[in-house]
Amino acid sequence: MEIFIDSDKLKKVLNIVARAVADTKTNPVLSGVKIEAANGRIVVTGGDEEITIVREISLGDDKSERILEAGTILVPIKYFHELIKKLPNQTIINIKKNNRQINITAGEIETTLSGMDEEDYPSLPRFSEENGVTIKGSLLIEMIKETQFAAAKVNSRAVLTGVNWLFSENTLTMIATNTQRMALRKTTLNSTVSGSFILPVKALGDLVNSIDKHQFISIYPSENSMVFKGKDILFYTRLISGTYPDISRIIPEESITELVVSRSLLLQGVDRANLLASQWKHNNVTLSLTEDGKIQVASSTTEVGQITERIKVQDVNGDKSLKISLDGKFLAETLKSINEEMVSLIFGGNLRPVIITPYNKKSTLHLISPVRAS
Amino acid sequence: MEIFIDSDKLKKVLNIVARAVADTKTNPVLSGVKIEAANGRIVVTGGDEEITIVREISLGDDKSERILEAGTILVPIKYFHELIKKLPNQTIINIKKNNRQINITAGEIETTLSGMDEEDYPSLPRFSEENGVTIKGSLLIEMIKETQFAAAKVNSRAVLTGVNWLFSENTLTMIATNTQRMALRKTTLNSTVSGSFILPVKALGDLVNSIDKHQFISIYPSENSMVFKGKDILFYTRLISGTYPDISRIIPEESITELVVSRSLLLQGVDRANLLASQWKHNNVTLSLTEDGKIQVASSTTEVGQITERIKVQDVNGDKSLKISLDGKFLAETLKSINEEMVSLIFGGNLRPVIITPYNKKSTLHLISPVRAS
Repeated sequence: MEIFIDSDKLKKVLNIVARAVADTKTNPVLSGVKIEAANGRIVVTGGDEEITIVREISLGDDKSERILEAGTILVPIKYFHELIKKLPNQTIINIKKNNRQINITAGEIETTLSGMDEEDYPSLPRFSEENGVTIKGSLLIEMIKETQFAAAKVNSRAVLTGVNWLFSENTLTMIATNTQRMALRKTTLNSTVSGSFILPVKALGDLVNSIDKHQFISIYPSENSMVFKGKDILFYTRLISGTYPDISRIIPEESITELVVSRSLLLQGVDRANLLASQWKHNNVTLSLTEDGKIQVASSTTEVGQITERIKVQDVNGDKSLKISLDGKFLAETLKSINEEMVSLIFGGNLRPVIITPYNKKSTLHLISPVRAS
Repeated sequence: MEIFIDSDKLKKVLNIVARAVADTKTNPVLSGVKIEAANGRIVVTGGDEEITIVREISLGDDKSERILEAGTILVPIKYFHELIKKLPNQTIINIKKNNRQINITAGEIETTLSGMDEEDYPSLPRFSEENGVTIKGSLLIEMIKETQFAAAKVNSRAVLTGVNWLFSENTLTMIATNTQRMALRKTTLNSTVSGSFILPVKALGDLVNSIDKHQFISIYPSENSMVFKGKDILFYTRLISGTYPDISRIIPEESITELVVSRSLLLQGVDRANLLASQWKHNNVTLSLTEDGKIQVASSTTEVGQITERIKVQDVNGDKSLKISLDGKFLAETLKSINEEMVSLIFGGNLRPVIITPYNKKSTLHLISPVRAS
């Protein structure tokens, strides 16, 4: 195997693939990145036990990039990526296999890395392109960002550490919850796929990092895995097995108070309140309404101090005696995940979950359960 | 005590002072920042066991900033700094002492922090302004940056963990060494001060962060401490006691090979070589000369690989059979500390220290001792 390739292109692809490559000692072959050159195509593959990224590099027309000899190599990603990153930009790199050694040359820089046995690298799972859904990259990234933060962290029920993707006729709904808060994002799409799938949060982060927001991405779900296909990328992830809880029952239907407020002003206020709430187990931040119809954000920590601020609301309806304590960290994360400038807060009572949505947009819905103020 | 002060000005000063404030439990009072308001001046003081920074804030002319009641407060820097950072920019902050409570108000944001007893804060050491030296801030910062990195890390002889400042008639010389490498920077200045002082590296980092490069700084050394005075700042640091070794004897006077090379090209080459040298105890990187008069930079790690690159030199004189192994990390740090684009490397032999200087500039001199190649 011998290729000539532009250093900038290789850097860009390795930045994407390297993030996903395992830093594992249980399966050393996964610490490598595979480069295949054949039929005018160079394909870079890397991943871990959960995901695999396959990225194609298209060669330029001017013959400075070319495949001199087809073949496959497997090199330790750590050294290979660090080395390629440190090579000059806008240079042609020559990569050549020499028995188990990989020679990497750029101008007067000559490097040899010990290769790994490419035969040991796991082959890609087969998948069918019959049953799929196509979605714009930017929408997919937006939906993932609006939900994944709400999933449970480690040491929870396995299904809750992932994000539930529900395909039903012409609709995709993403849901994440850690039982104290929930994020839900829905979209309509042209789809015949149906079913419920649970995607690991780490895979979703790598997916967002890997796909081009301007491309259309095709999604092919199967029982154990999901495949994402773009113009020059294939992204495989394993699914989390198990049954995701039905959250439709927990969304409150009655409200006693509703208000509309600037997302950024509320977020800044909650951020400040979190300073003095951070010593609490639950980051208690208390929301209430003032007599003149402002929303008041407050927190306190004994022996340190207290903070109270009032924020003008655009609109408020219903019971003004509301007073509710929430986990300020959950509230800040929720507000950060929303793109719109105005948000609606819908309260069902002091002990009921709060609903937070972008103003006048029903496709995104967040729930945060109250904590008992001490 | 009650003051009105611009949020941007207070943020800027706290960013400087907070870096120096102790995160200590041995002397809790040092975890506070002291704010004194009197005679139209607001003075902010913070530090740790080793250094103290005193920064004055000048009030604007338009009366929106003012001292309503003179006095002094001491507040925990951690909460106070985090809070002030999160307050809106271009706002007037009202700070008011209310018994042991400190009220901080900005518009609709009302905060109360528990104060500390300002009587407990250590008073500043006295110093004499009789015997001092004045130096431009930018030159002082440059000299510190060119030397401090070469000092020994913890667990060495105490004197070597600092930087030696030698004042003699009209000259200031800064020297740092960890016995394997040394950095020296000299300047002429109008001075009657003389003596040898050892400054702690952490204090030098805080000093660089604290002073304005456009201001002139007066330096007042005494037996145990050194004081730096600028237009709106006083910076105190304790000195390290002990006798600094005389390094004048170890600078080699004979050379067998001298060359001039681009600093950035050599640094990039050493950076790459360090990738494959990093598994070694000493980060061995080998320098040699090629037959066509280039400098060759090489390293290798068994079972991982090797790298060799050749860099064009501007000028080379003397013995071309040179081959010397250095700690690549020391070499990279040295090259990074130099501002000039061309550097001279002067070799006294395979087992003698290498001298590195900016080309045609004798006021800066670096030494790196060779390591034995395995």
